[in-house]
Amino acid sequence: MVNIPLLLMGCGGVGRQLLHHIISCRPLHSKQGVVLRVVGVCDSKSMVAVPDVLTSELGDQFLLQLCKVKSSGSSLRELANFGECQVFSGEEIAQKVADVAATLRKSSGLALVDCSASSQTIELLSQVVSLDCCVVLANKKPLTSSLEDYDKLVSKPRWIRHESTVGAGLPVISTINRIIQSGDPIFRIIGSLSGTLGYVMSEVESGRPFSEVVTAAKKLGYTEPDPRDDLSGMDVARKALILARLLGHRIELDSIKIESLYPVEMGPVVMPLEEFLANGLPLLDKDIQKRIDNASSKGNVLRYVCLIEESRCNVGIQEVPKDSALGRLEGSDNVLEIYSRCYSEQPLVIQGAGAGNDTTSAGVLADIIDMQDLYRG
Amino acid sequence: MVNIPLLLMGCGGVGRQLLHHIISCRPLHSKQGVVLRVVGVCDSKSMVAVPDVLTSELGDQFLLQLCKVKSSGSSLRELANFGECQVFSGEEIAQKVADVAATLRKSSGLALVDCSASSQTIELLSQVVSLDCCVVLANKKPLTSSLEDYDKLVSKPRWIRHESTVGAGLPVISTINRIIQSGDPIFRIIGSLSGTLGYVMSEVESGRPFSEVVTAAKKLGYTEPDPRDDLSGMDVARKALILARLLGHRIELDSIKIESLYPVEMGPVVMPLEEFLANGLPLLDKDIQKRIDNASSKGNVLRYVCLIEESRCNVGIQEVPKDSALGRLEGSDNVLEIYSRCYSEQPLVIQGAGAGNDTTSAGVLADIIDMQDLYRG
Repeated sequence: MVNIPLLLMGCGGVGRQLLHHIISCRPLHSKQGVVLRVVGVCDSKSMVAVPDVLTSELGDQFLLQLCKVKSSGSSLRELANFGECQVFSGEEIAQKVADVAATLRKSSGLALVDCSASSQTIELLSQVVSLDCCVVLANKKPLTSSLEDYDKLVSKPRWIRHESTVGAGLPVISTINRIIQSGDPIFRIIGSLSGTLGYVMSEVESGRPFSEVVTAAKKLGYTEPDPRDDLSGMDVARKALILARLLGHRIELDSIKIESLYPVEMGPVVMPLEEFLANGLPLLDKDIQKRIDNASSKGNVLRYVCLIEESRCNVGIQEVPKDSALGRLEGSDNVLEIYSRCYSEQPLVIQGAGAGNDTTSAGVLADIIDMQDLYRG
Repeated sequence: MVNIPLLLMGCGGVGRQLLHHIISCRPLHSKQGVVLRVVGVCDSKSMVAVPDVLTSELGDQFLLQLCKVKSSGSSLRELANFGECQVFSGEEIAQKVADVAATLRKSSGLALVDCSASSQTIELLSQVVSLDCCVVLANKKPLTSSLEDYDKLVSKPRWIRHESTVGAGLPVISTINRIIQSGDPIFRIIGSLSGTLGYVMSEVESGRPFSEVVTAAKKLGYTEPDPRDDLSGMDVARKALILARLLGHRIELDSIKIESLYPVEMGPVVMPLEEFLANGLPLLDKDIQKRIDNASSKGNVLRYVCLIEESRCNVGIQEVPKDSALGRLEGSDNVLEIYSRCYSEQPLVIQGAGAGNDTTSAGVLADIIDMQDLYRG
């Protein structure tokens, strides 16, 4: 039986869903000889942990109660009296996580799982990696910080997994890693990695004005509360950076050419959201329509893509053939085309839902289970 | 440094390409801290092995010479004088392989790699698995034998990999395993897993007669020497069985409903190849055209698919929507649609080249490297 002690950072939607998955998968994992033992959970303010990380665990009833507490917006501190646990706050948290890793490294090791969206976890993650413990990330920030931080984090490639940082649970990272490991050089990756922008681009293609589509997408809950968070392309750029670095590109986030779908003068600092939606957005319709028509005259369509090839890493609107996997994309699916020696004329294509708590946390759980051999013997 | 001793069975196109990949990837793998040490190679008649499997290896020059000898159609025995190696024949081979596994299990373990197309390797593979050694298969036969044999072979799931048995290097098995491990139940898999039949079905769709397309495909080298080996659906059925068993179906090959694209009275036992091509095939054109027209009237197209859902596992022609991933398939790509809780309305789609020595052996190599953690400590 392989016993994997687990410490979860972040108990938003993805983190809570992960705890639910862990609980419901217990019979399945046990049949495969794997036991996941949750020894601590923290958010940005508080942490709950078992008194003895070597032997005990936060029980399933405790974890379910934790999910309840967090989804009602309360603090983890409320759990102090629910079961046998210690509670830590503020700066104590990082110290406690490091202590847990140091305690467990000699026996079983630890899997530190980052389901937060914070850029504050990098140092802790690197520290844990240097202690020969594993880290699993759904959080893109630690991998899209400076190259120096990145190098520390991936210094032991087998001890870090981050499938859910790109395309949620879609097998993007694992597939790219497999291709690289088999000595098949990847020379081009092009993909639509934002469900929101994928939806917007395929809807405007069918003739609806850009402003109308964005407003509708916001109403449907497809966008962030301020759609400019999607339209800026920053989220796609982080995913592009993760893929580019995986391919060996030694680049920083600010060296990626990012095309924002709104001009600077309509940015959040300059223009309030209401004004952007009412007056800003409609001003963008004509230009996008012109670009669509222009592409269409060549049998192409527009997609908001990340493109990585040679030394280039660009994020923005691109013309793609209508009959390619990217060009045929509809709805909010993600799609990735990978070109390599083995897949040179026709790419290897991966497509499917690339967002959502369920698939994101499923990807995290698959990563954890996939690391099980590091916990043997 | 992780040192993986490797014994290769089968030195046809895939096996030889694997040896080339191993050699050319040495700098890459060494950078990742992995060394692949080839201790023996065998085909159905002979085996060459190092005298001391604990410390020595067949050098790269020796392996290149081996590839040369085999591609010229000569026997492995010819290598006896080329470098320091032992040569075994006939029944000695199985005994020697078992000996190597038994010798290495206590120290580093062994990866037994089956790139043959033989059904004679099952017993040896099971024996090696029971000795806590790893097996990696491109060979479908061992996994499509009786359930009893299958159970033995997969009794330690982490010690067996077989990505290249379905869709060559495409990440089919690894993805399905990830989805299962994350507790996301797969309820339907439908895919086109034969490049040959994919090509045939998309060509007949465009109006060419079935007989003409098959004859052309044969001339292009897309089919087996006797195209009936493809048209029978047996190869697809083996892949379907592998996927179905992965999903937990307790079935045998003969419980799969297989649609052959030619009737029994045109089978290889009854009708010589020339007669089949000249007089048999054209008799099939009308029926297939009728089915295409019928599907087309409903906005569908015909694909030769494997379909696994609930307790069903069928292989044959199926109507699929023209605008689905399967329906849009052209050329000889493989495509697989996976439906699960996370991918319930829109499937997870994997598409790309699903055949060829290069991608098949790349998949085998990725499997070997992916097992490295079992060789630590």
